[in-house]
Amino acid sequence: MSELMKGLKRTGRVTSFNKEDVGKEITIMGWVNKRRDLGGVIFIDVRDVSGILQVVFKVEIDSDLFKKAETLRNEYVIAIKGLVEKRDEETINPNLKTGYIEVVASELRVLSAAKTSPIDMSNDSKTNELLRLKHRYLDLRREPMQDILKLRHKVCMITREFFNKNEFYEIETPMMTKSTPEGARDYLVPSRVNQGSFYALPQSPQIFKQLLMLSGMDKYMQIVRCFRDEDLRANRQPEFTQIDLEMSFVDVDDVIEVNERYIKDLFKKIADYEITLPINRMTYKEAMERFGSDKPDTRFGLELVDLSNVLKDSKFKVFSGTIKNGGSVRAINAKGCGEMFSRRDIDSLGEYAKGIGSKGMAWIKVEENGLKSAITKFLSEEEIDNILKTMEAKTGDLICFIADSNNKVFSILGNLRLEIAKRTKLLNDKKGFELLWITEFPLLDYDEENKRYIATHHPFTSPMDEDLSKMDTQPDKVRAKAYDLVLNGEELGGGSIRIYDPEVQKKMFSLLGFSEEDTNDRFGFLIEALKYGTPPHGGIAYGLDRIVMSLAGTDNIKDVIAFPKIQNASCPLTEAPSKVDAKQLRELGIAVIDD
Amino acid sequence: MSELMKGLKRTGRVTSFNKEDVGKEITIMGWVNKRRDLGGVIFIDVRDVSGILQVVFKVEIDSDLFKKAETLRNEYVIAIKGLVEKRDEETINPNLKTGYIEVVASELRVLSAAKTSPIDMSNDSKTNELLRLKHRYLDLRREPMQDILKLRHKVCMITREFFNKNEFYEIETPMMTKSTPEGARDYLVPSRVNQGSFYALPQSPQIFKQLLMLSGMDKYMQIVRCFRDEDLRANRQPEFTQIDLEMSFVDVDDVIEVNERYIKDLFKKIADYEITLPINRMTYKEAMERFGSDKPDTRFGLELVDLSNVLKDSKFKVFSGTIKNGGSVRAINAKGCGEMFSRRDIDSLGEYAKGIGSKGMAWIKVEENGLKSAITKFLSEEEIDNILKTMEAKTGDLICFIADSNNKVFSILGNLRLEIAKRTKLLNDKKGFELLWITEFPLLDYDEENKRYIATHHPFTSPMDEDLSKMDTQPDKVRAKAYDLVLNGEELGGGSIRIYDPEVQKKMFSLLGFSEEDTNDRFGFLIEALKYGTPPHGGIAYGLDRIVMSLAGTDNIKDVIAFPKIQNASCPLTEAPSKVDAKQLRELGIAVIDD
Repeated sequence: MSELMKGLKRTGRVTSFNKEDVGKEITIMGWVNKRRDLGGVIFIDVRDVSGILQVVFKVEIDSDLFKKAETLRNEYVIAIKGLVEKRDEETINPNLKTGYIEVVASELRVLSAAKTSPIDMSNDSKTNELLRLKHRYLDLRREPMQDILKLRHKVCMITREFFNKNEFYEIETPMMTKSTPEGARDYLVPSRVNQGSFYALPQSPQIFKQLLMLSGMDKYMQIVRCFRDEDLRANRQPEFTQIDLEMSFVDVDDVIEVNERYIKDLFKKIADYEITLPINRMTYKEAMERFGSDKPDTRFGLELVDLSNVLKDSKFKVFSGTIKNGGSVRAINAKGCGEMFSRRDIDSLGEYAKGIGSKGMAWIKVEENGLKSAITKFLSEEEIDNILKTMEAKTGDLICFIADSNNKVFSILGNLRLEIAKRTKLLNDKKGFELLWITEFPLLDYDEENKRYIATHHPFTSPMDEDLSKMDTQPDKVRAKAYDLVLNGEELGGGSIRIYDPEVQKKMFSLLGFSEEDTNDRFGFLIEALKYGTPPHGGIAYGLDRIVMSLAGTDNIKDVIAFPKIQNASCPLTEAPSKVDAKQLRELGIAVIDD
Repeated sequence: MSELMKGLKRTGRVTSFNKEDVGKEITIMGWVNKRRDLGGVIFIDVRDVSGILQVVFKVEIDSDLFKKAETLRNEYVIAIKGLVEKRDEETINPNLKTGYIEVVASELRVLSAAKTSPIDMSNDSKTNELLRLKHRYLDLRREPMQDILKLRHKVCMITREFFNKNEFYEIETPMMTKSTPEGARDYLVPSRVNQGSFYALPQSPQIFKQLLMLSGMDKYMQIVRCFRDEDLRANRQPEFTQIDLEMSFVDVDDVIEVNERYIKDLFKKIADYEITLPINRMTYKEAMERFGSDKPDTRFGLELVDLSNVLKDSKFKVFSGTIKNGGSVRAINAKGCGEMFSRRDIDSLGEYAKGIGSKGMAWIKVEENGLKSAITKFLSEEEIDNILKTMEAKTGDLICFIADSNNKVFSILGNLRLEIAKRTKLLNDKKGFELLWITEFPLLDYDEENKRYIATHHPFTSPMDEDLSKMDTQPDKVRAKAYDLVLNGEELGGGSIRIYDPEVQKKMFSLLGFSEEDTNDRFGFLIEALKYGTPPHGGIAYGLDRIVMSLAGTDNIKDVIAFPKIQNASCPLTEAPSKVDAKQLRELGIAVIDD
């Protein structure tokens, strides 16, 4: 049975005391972090959310109390009353906030005993993640985990304060709503009252935040839970949190301007890092051509170079044929890798390229005494010269070629670039945050498989004014008022100006292959709403989890969520999801189908 | 087709301009609130989220522009460029923030035309609620609705700032989780990956906030969505928002202390209302005996008086028999109602009492020339004298009696008291906020129907230290460390100190009739968690919706939620819930059962 706290009142968290409290009687409460027995003296490190404070029991002062202290084990929860004293000179620990003082105990209560922890509770716990998640309440007692939860709290406070000062209103949107077309599967909630009908958990509050602009609320923000029923990849969670914004009477520059000030404020306050404004911008087209990615990591070069002009008439049909068919030949000059990489390394890089869809990676190694390559024999001397010149190749370099459709060339070389950077440890010394806006995304992507257009962002994204007329004639050439914010090669957030003209919105749905009936069924209320006076509006949504990951320096999304789910979308701690009573299902009018 | 905003940039919200801006060229954007044509002059009131600003078009200045202004209709969204000028003396409107200035337009763009609004958009709209909810984006353009959303935002900001300053961390808890036993039905979410299993949407984050205390996070807060699948009564919503708190190393007084400072801070900042601390406390027992309610409205008297001692030996068996069977006879003196109420009024009051479960309301009317009553003939003179004395009856008073089991007497007289207050308009002049803590709730309620105990609050509520030993012997006599905060007769929030000893927690589940297997199945992980060192902890949860209702002075919960649901838990705007594709259900492994 635990002892009661009755009559005791905590004076403060353990690190709230310092040298100035010497001589004071205090009461602290916390966990036994460590016990050391030194003959007639026992030292207990008491831990709470703020840190650690040393407590001393001396047999010569109170032998009963001393005996009780001998029973303490790690993770026992105790209350201590005692006097703050200066530590002896030789026991001072300048690394601890409370390293100059200790508490000489006069009373000890064991509020709660503790079994031995099944997990390694040190800062760099060696216990496997699944076991730690099963005992998350122990895992979260570790300082690095608590630091991240505190950081996340601080990010949210700073975010809300910033947007409040900038006249945004935080407005809650429904969690049980209608399916919105964000591309992923919805989680459904069966309705008991309207049997056979279902709510959807929101993939984002997109439509509601637009409706709030139609409602005249002018500037909206919300830190909001969103849901996607996807097959989980690493660093995805079925529920995740967005910092969600929307503004009225704005165009692209207006949204970017306030968001740059926000990001600057956040990084300054959290990481004491100065972001220089304005943040660089790059069009989608340039990002793809230079980095093969719409979220380029611009902390290093290894840029893509188009060799199609050089090779379009080559006798080497693998190259020239691809170009004639509308594709391209592009290459990366991996500076110094000719020297650094063995033949086996290069083959392994080729294997990597195959794994991500390449039909084959050609290469030229520039050595002191000439070129090494399997393809030079197919190329003319002039072609080789032009390649070396265009690629600015020097002795020791390795040039990697991909010939394919443009989309594939970009995707393969974009990834190859990251892989080469990883293998050469190019980023090992790179600190800091490299931010970049990607703009002018295409409005539509062509889905080869289903032979139809899909929205690159979502169906409410506005075309650029200049391209509005192309919606009828060259829809694949229409650029959108869409923008992503990229940090060190990761997408922090993305947004757009929205369509505010009901006719344009209808046209968009029709380009996406919706019949008029479909459109009305699913979005009739929105199109109707646009007819009653709609302000131009736009916004952005950030992945809060990803922002916290960046600022905490972890690449594991589970580290930044108090109670995360694992790959199969289950919670190892509570064992959700779980079976429910047959009666509950009957009430909902649904049945589980056995396969 | 809407005109594009291109090239125009809003200078500020319309009420950001004043006399000091006279002579400046500004650009404003907003809705046409009103158009007045005065021959060669047109006045347009432009409205945005901040208020209204008058714009002037004069035919003599620019006749094309004037013609364009003639086409404007209410709710058109327009952009205006123009010069700020002082209004003529006679057109000054001192009631408007911008009443001393107007904008002489030099450019007008119609960003979006508007069909005629299907709802009355005046401040006291006469349109029925359902139609307003269907066009919520129009309804929310009305000033009183926007004021409430702004108020709600401010309440949340103040709340977060207060708890942040007091070292609470806001930590997000899962939305897709395991069912917790809060008494209501859970909304379920079928799992696609684990077919046949279901997540539950949380009725509260109760277990997770306790786990956070076990995790050593010390003080937690969250403004969090919760869900209950109940048959909706008025002022209930399937999803609602809680201000949720939990603290470690605390007892009742500690939780109450910080919460009193919070409530004081909130009411001061929002309503400029001074709450005197400490807030009064009343035990559950006293509240029931004096007011027949655990959320008494103490702004008026009409207190219950126990007449059992006076009547226990009466020859009138209706009274004495009830008392002998363990019930009681209690009464209210409705001061002055003898005079005010006609015989028909009293009968109607009796009908009301019947409607809420009374077998009959006896009454005595004290008139100048004696008593009027149907029961005095059954009572002795001494009994009547004692009644009048105990009830402090004066000429003009009406005494209403209920004889029944104690629970029924409390519930009937408690409601009768409110009804009498309503009928006599007793509260019509009462302003302000009367706050009260109700404490020492019973730990358990006996459910007569199912012949078993249920938890008065929830199964994690700690017994009072003094009553701990009674858990084995007299469980119905055990009082809990539970407390509710009551405002003007409405529960604002409620909480408790939690059980932190795993043995007590097990005993609690066994009192509630859970088998050991049941307990392990549903709460095994929690009981296990309590064994690894658990701090004493407790907390509270407020209904945010109700707090905002109180501060906004509305008794309609739909007024304080941007997109509320109606009685059948549907959304008139989006028509959620709705049918879904058969394919979606197949993927989830469920089927809809046809009745």
